[in-house]
Amino acid sequence: MPIACGFRLEVFAVPGVPLLRSGDDLPTVVLGALAGQHVELRDGDVVVLASKAVSRAEGRFVDLTTVVPSARAEEVGREIGKDPRVVHLVLSEASAVSRKARDVLVVRHRLGFVVANAAIDLSNARPVDAPETSGPWALLLPVDPDASAERIRALLAKETGAGVGVVITDSFGRPFRLGTVGVAIGVAGLPALWDKRGEPDLFERRLEHTETALADQVAAAADLVAGQAAEGRALVIVRGLSFDVGTHGVGELLRPPNQDLYA
Amino acid sequence: MPIACGFRLEVFAVPGVPLLRSGDDLPTVVLGALAGQHVELRDGDVVVLASKAVSRAEGRFVDLTTVVPSARAEEVGREIGKDPRVVHLVLSEASAVSRKARDVLVVRHRLGFVVANAAIDLSNARPVDAPETSGPWALLLPVDPDASAERIRALLAKETGAGVGVVITDSFGRPFRLGTVGVAIGVAGLPALWDKRGEPDLFERRLEHTETALADQVAAAADLVAGQAAEGRALVIVRGLSFDVGTHGVGELLRPPNQDLYA
Repeated sequence: MPIACGFRLEVFAVPGVPLLRSGDDLPTVVLGALAGQHVELRDGDVVVLASKAVSRAEGRFVDLTTVVPSARAEEVGREIGKDPRVVHLVLSEASAVSRKARDVLVVRHRLGFVVANAAIDLSNARPVDAPETSGPWALLLPVDPDASAERIRALLAKETGAGVGVVITDSFGRPFRLGTVGVAIGVAGLPALWDKRGEPDLFERRLEHTETALADQVAAAADLVAGQAAEGRALVIVRGLSFDVGTHGVGELLRPPNQDLYA
Repeated sequence: MPIACGFRLEVFAVPGVPLLRSGDDLPTVVLGALAGQHVELRDGDVVVLASKAVSRAEGRFVDLTTVVPSARAEEVGREIGKDPRVVHLVLSEASAVSRKARDVLVVRHRLGFVVANAAIDLSNARPVDAPETSGPWALLLPVDPDASAERIRALLAKETGAGVGVVITDSFGRPFRLGTVGVAIGVAGLPALWDKRGEPDLFERRLEHTETALADQVAAAADLVAGQAAEGRALVIVRGLSFDVGTHGVGELLRPPNQDLYA
């Protein structure tokens, strides 16, 4: 795969993405924010968007007071000491439970990610126009992040002529290590996984273990400038990578459960 | 913690770090490479160095033909179909075995990281001056990466006056997701973990889940430009973060085994 990286990357936030409302057209919003900041996209730019913005545009809000927990959710909620309404949403989003512990429910999300609490967000989750007295609110992951990324990529390509990649990101915790890191949950245009196997090393041996999680590293780099509370930094550009724009998706990054020693 | 990030990061490789030999003084090498490329360090720069360069300077080479596997290594090697000499080295570097599978041995490294094959490198692992006919060679992780990072940080501070962070990185695989990502294995000067809990969100709620693995994300960003085969990119600068230089180490990022659902 003819991918290469220059010696210099720029990672910069593009302000001007407002708190989105259900029904906002995300590709148009992104295009408008770029124009508003006079950012001219270049071939090879990666446009990185926080999943929360995508979820808001898709109206993935749930008022917890409207949730009637299932019997299973009540049971799990009692077992781990967690709000059964949240447990209900987590289980609704999950294809399997991975681990349970006090206030923690790690699941395999229907999209394939293994993540705590199905990546449901309980902060900054209120719709812009919801009454102060409503909620508390939860915000679910986007319905199909690869498709959302592709819609954005296609409009940007059409309107600007630039061959860009698009990565939709969230912040996930991890086994073994503390702290969240940015990860890709939707990918269009760039390889999510960069396969370097077969390239010779300095001594002409074939390299081992050289599939790089390109889209996840892009997400982590973007997270350094995006922050987490700052919805004004929902949009970040990573400039300086070089890749062939093609059809890809986040599925490249998902380890099949039957090949996962920690499933 | 008064840490903040600007809206723009630069991530650039600094060429000029040669293939190191056992006994090379790493801080001097880094200082020389920066001077050779006329890079003037600024307060808040993070100097990122590939663990392989540190290991080479520390002479962490092992000629596999000199390894006499233990009985346990022979047994595990047979069980998983892996060279018993490599298994012997992995077990020697480990405090515990986490998972075994065909050709894979995931261990808790004596430094605390859970990682496949104790992060022992079998490519680009030959000492510069070793005869062609020697080996195959293995390269172990540095002895004390936090201490190595601190030695580099201290010399850079003394010689340049800049308050910088130093991160020593490797590329690790992960549960659940394919592809390697850059991770911190040694940290000096910057917070490895950035604790944002307690900061208000947009709606003045307290944020949840907002400890960011700052040093790991720096490592991932650097890995985007460092590549893996390219030892000429062992040194990368991440510019544009803002943090208080202080005493930290990679231990901040290590989840205690008794709090790890996947240990």
